[in-house]
Amino acid sequence: MTTAVSPLSRPFPELPVPAGVRIGVARAGYKAWDRADLALMAFAPGTAVAGLTTRSQCPSPEVELCRLRLPAGRARALVVNAGNANAFTGAAGRAAAEAQSAEVARLLGCPAGEVFPASTGVIGVPLPTGKALAGVAAAHAALGEATLRDAAQAIMTTDTFPKGASADAMLGERRVRIAGIAKGSGMIAPDMATMLAFLFLDAAVAPGFLHELLASANARSFAAITVDGDTSTSDTLLAFATGTAGNAVVDGWESPGADALAAAVEDVCRKLAQLVVRDGEGARKMIEVRVSGAVSDASAHRVAMTIANSPLVKTAVAGGDANWGRVVMAVGKAGEPAERDRLSIRFGGVEVAARGAVVPDFCEAPVAAHLAGDEVEIAVNLGLGNGRATVWTCDLTHGYIAINADYRS
Amino acid sequence: MTTAVSPLSRPFPELPVPAGVRIGVARAGYKAWDRADLALMAFAPGTAVAGLTTRSQCPSPEVELCRLRLPAGRARALVVNAGNANAFTGAAGRAAAEAQSAEVARLLGCPAGEVFPASTGVIGVPLPTGKALAGVAAAHAALGEATLRDAAQAIMTTDTFPKGASADAMLGERRVRIAGIAKGSGMIAPDMATMLAFLFLDAAVAPGFLHELLASANARSFAAITVDGDTSTSDTLLAFATGTAGNAVVDGWESPGADALAAAVEDVCRKLAQLVVRDGEGARKMIEVRVSGAVSDASAHRVAMTIANSPLVKTAVAGGDANWGRVVMAVGKAGEPAERDRLSIRFGGVEVAARGAVVPDFCEAPVAAHLAGDEVEIAVNLGLGNGRATVWTCDLTHGYIAINADYRS
Repeated sequence: MTTAVSPLSRPFPELPVPAGVRIGVARAGYKAWDRADLALMAFAPGTAVAGLTTRSQCPSPEVELCRLRLPAGRARALVVNAGNANAFTGAAGRAAAEAQSAEVARLLGCPAGEVFPASTGVIGVPLPTGKALAGVAAAHAALGEATLRDAAQAIMTTDTFPKGASADAMLGERRVRIAGIAKGSGMIAPDMATMLAFLFLDAAVAPGFLHELLASANARSFAAITVDGDTSTSDTLLAFATGTAGNAVVDGWESPGADALAAAVEDVCRKLAQLVVRDGEGARKMIEVRVSGAVSDASAHRVAMTIANSPLVKTAVAGGDANWGRVVMAVGKAGEPAERDRLSIRFGGVEVAARGAVVPDFCEAPVAAHLAGDEVEIAVNLGLGNGRATVWTCDLTHGYIAINADYRS
Repeated sequence: MTTAVSPLSRPFPELPVPAGVRIGVARAGYKAWDRADLALMAFAPGTAVAGLTTRSQCPSPEVELCRLRLPAGRARALVVNAGNANAFTGAAGRAAAEAQSAEVARLLGCPAGEVFPASTGVIGVPLPTGKALAGVAAAHAALGEATLRDAAQAIMTTDTFPKGASADAMLGERRVRIAGIAKGSGMIAPDMATMLAFLFLDAAVAPGFLHELLASANARSFAAITVDGDTSTSDTLLAFATGTAGNAVVDGWESPGADALAAAVEDVCRKLAQLVVRDGEGARKMIEVRVSGAVSDASAHRVAMTIANSPLVKTAVAGGDANWGRVVMAVGKAGEPAERDRLSIRFGGVEVAARGAVVPDFCEAPVAAHLAGDEVEIAVNLGLGNGRATVWTCDLTHGYIAINADYRS
């Protein structure tokens, strides 16, 4: 089990706790880790919530509780357990998740339906109720003492660094702030959301519109990253808007600043998603795959994800090999409209193949130099239409095998 | 680049050259290999042919020529080049493939439309015409001297052992024989056919019915294996029936022995497909994934392939870890009907999870013993219907990374 920090890590940004949010962390002791593994956040009354959860057919009870509670659109608390995913644990796991929510509700004096739970870690072991309740009590007693960095650290599992991002937007004359944290390193091919990501807004936003903003941002961020093509049972993306900024409630595209808010939400989601890729298990290079010239954006996305999930493309990048033949292979297998004789491929801006063959007088040196860096760009033009998409992934290295062939359940 | 023989290899079987087939091999010199890299087979006049080729949108010119020539149903020759896939090589590659076919036709005195070409190896470098023609001349001069083992060896690329299989069938009173060879090790997730596999029958079979037999056998063999989820640009499965056995032409299910012939064709295809998995890049364990209780066979197949392609499942097997949580994850992401609370999972026949949770008093010892062997069996019952499917894959090890991060184009 590697414990070294990813070479692609980024320092945690300056991220003040948003108004209307209080954070406490505690050590529930789900694992032998000598660190906090439970984060509790309490929100001001009236906080709006929106969220997206995994499309996995085998979701955790926490995901099911979030799904049940999201339609009402109101949140007073978020509680996150790290080290135990509580997934596939039957009635015992469901009871533990409900008991923890109920305890949070009791401590905060709010309905259990306004508590949003999430758990991440090993699958198949029921969340130990005693630890879960004692952890919540300790975190509640410490509310207000922790920072977003503390929370980002408490929710890590195989992550090697805490992940945070922020953005501002002007709503008319009023500046609002969005802060976000995320965790994720393996089992990353989010289908609607990443393993766990949480956004906190001080803006007042109607829950329905917050959902719209989040879904659109998700499509171009968490739904556009992959580490290993494996989708977690626990993927959860939640946004909490406390309304403490004092703006008029944003409830549609005609509200002042709605576009700026949408851009800021997407900005935070994209930064967090890229940080998850940067902490991909065993990652040594970050890969941006851009596909253009597809028959539609959706088609471009599927081609890009097929390239990004190809173990042969990912190992070629790991080896610094400008093996565009493997990119051709991945385009060919994607099952989307593509014509060999219209296809062109660039690595780091240098055209290597065009119209069905390698470019004449192809010189590998500048491409090899690009591939030696830790940010690799693969651009494919299908030459068929105007569809385009960008996705992010990481290379596939011995580190991934070492982490996952040794990690015991 | 590893050159050690796969620990899962099988000895090449006793495989006499079928009546009506003459084989010659030669060293065209596509690579620095000190071995034959071109195989030529000449068939008796009247030989029927059927075939399946890759569904890749970027197929090689050899695949395109096979597709053009298959509808006529007649073959006099097969020519296979190893070390150069000739894929994504534009007009130059197409011209080289056509020139090689034309030379074979000239040497054998048959139409070029009855010559079936296949090439495998690096993508993006046009087949060198001079070597391709000289190789064909040398192999033609040696026709009749080589065995099926020689041919199986000549068509290898990253394969670590030659692959052959055979089966017999009774057509009324007459025994007919099917011999097959295959190659493949990486870029294996055949979509209609494996990288390269060839079947030789002495039976007389009508081309249309031969296609029907082959398509059905393929669905339960080559279409049911995966090494890395990557589909080659060159996948080709061809069956040649020379008719030298003297049976009445088999042209439909009502012909005597048609069922036995179908079973024998499927038997050879399944053996060859499993040998390809046994030579999967870096493979140390062969994995059989059986899914039952799905809403349909097609649904079961998709769930099984999702499990077989999951890098987290494959690394868990590599590590000997009974990590059934990763199997749950893969079932959940497959996008097929599944209900957590009806799901059960067995490793090597031992139930580890049932009805949405780990079995009470689960004892890991017998499962760990099973996982320590080199043939691992994962069985999933979805508990929903009668759909079932079986697929085969191998584990994901450091060997795969070493082979593919170091293999330069």
